[in-house]
Amino acid sequence: MEFDLQQTIALLSRTPSSLNALLRDLPQTWTLGNEGPRTWSPYDIVGHLIHGERTDWMPRARMILEQGESRAFDPFDRLAQERESPGKSLGELLDEFARLRSQNVEALRAMNLQPEDFERRGCHPALGLVTLSQLLATWAVHDMTHLHQLARVMACQYREAVGPWSAYLGVLHCQGHGG
Amino acid sequence: MEFDLQQTIALLSRTPSSLNALLRDLPQTWTLGNEGPRTWSPYDIVGHLIHGERTDWMPRARMILEQGESRAFDPFDRLAQERESPGKSLGELLDEFARLRSQNVEALRAMNLQPEDFERRGCHPALGLVTLSQLLATWAVHDMTHLHQLARVMACQYREAVGPWSAYLGVLHCQGHGG
Repeated sequence: MEFDLQQTIALLSRTPSSLNALLRDLPQTWTLGNEGPRTWSPYDIVGHLIHGERTDWMPRARMILEQGESRAFDPFDRLAQERESPGKSLGELLDEFARLRSQNVEALRAMNLQPEDFERRGCHPALGLVTLSQLLATWAVHDMTHLHQLARVMACQYREAVGPWSAYLGVLHCQGHGG
Repeated sequence: MEFDLQQTIALLSRTPSSLNALLRDLPQTWTLGNEGPRTWSPYDIVGHLIHGERTDWMPRARMILEQGESRAFDPFDRLAQERESPGKSLGELLDEFARLRSQNVEALRAMNLQPEDFERRGCHPALGLVTLSQLLATWAVHDMTHLHQLARVMACQYREAVGPWSAYLGVLHCQGHGG
């Protein structure tokens, strides 16, 4: 399907409450378990989503509108949560993600973007020229890539416990595709 | 991690509200879109989860406790939702899933299972001997396999819209692993 702002906002608006319903007060064996060294737990994933709300999506959208292709986006720090999350409970992170996402969606609506704006271009430090609509679509798909990862990480905790059913459970055979 | 009944129930109890937060009143381009012929949309996935609540998990748990290995489980109909969902809105399906899951979790608690019960065995029609703990762990991982699928299916709708970012979005490179 083609990019649509309202449909993008509809999805972006739901991610925090869906993660909240799944993760809040869930035992830590689920929320702190990962897939091995240098992999992420659900706790890490929520921290990563928070960092994106602060530094990635809306700052880049503003840069496209204000500076166009003249300056490349700042690179996104994929490990920022290792510095920023410690000391915070998962409940605090979920609250913070919900608050930031709500503010960002409100700011996005307030931009009152018109169809011609979606073709405006910015410069990604590695990918080169990208459009505003590609950035906004990626924001929504980025939520889904991490929901996909989170389901896989949680399933992985019961990899042995399911016994022979492992053969039927596709999620246990997902290699992660880098995310 | 090893099977734990309370931790399994904690996860099983959260899936309906997480799906509800994500999917209720979301535009149909997200909820009815699939990955091509003979693949499932989020609407199909919720119908499949409902059928599992009715015919798979708790009926099989009761069969293990009441009949042991003497009779194989009835095969699970993976396409039942094609008969059972038509005419129902996604909101109705989400309500039905939440109600059935709540009833089943309550029935599971009421069984007052003891550690020795988890090793009791039943006969799967294709996999052979399985234990009660493997069945219950699979119930929870089955939720995660379909959450994983659902995130992938929704992301797929924006496969083109993200442009060059596709390279960074692992979910767009997931082949599904049969689920």
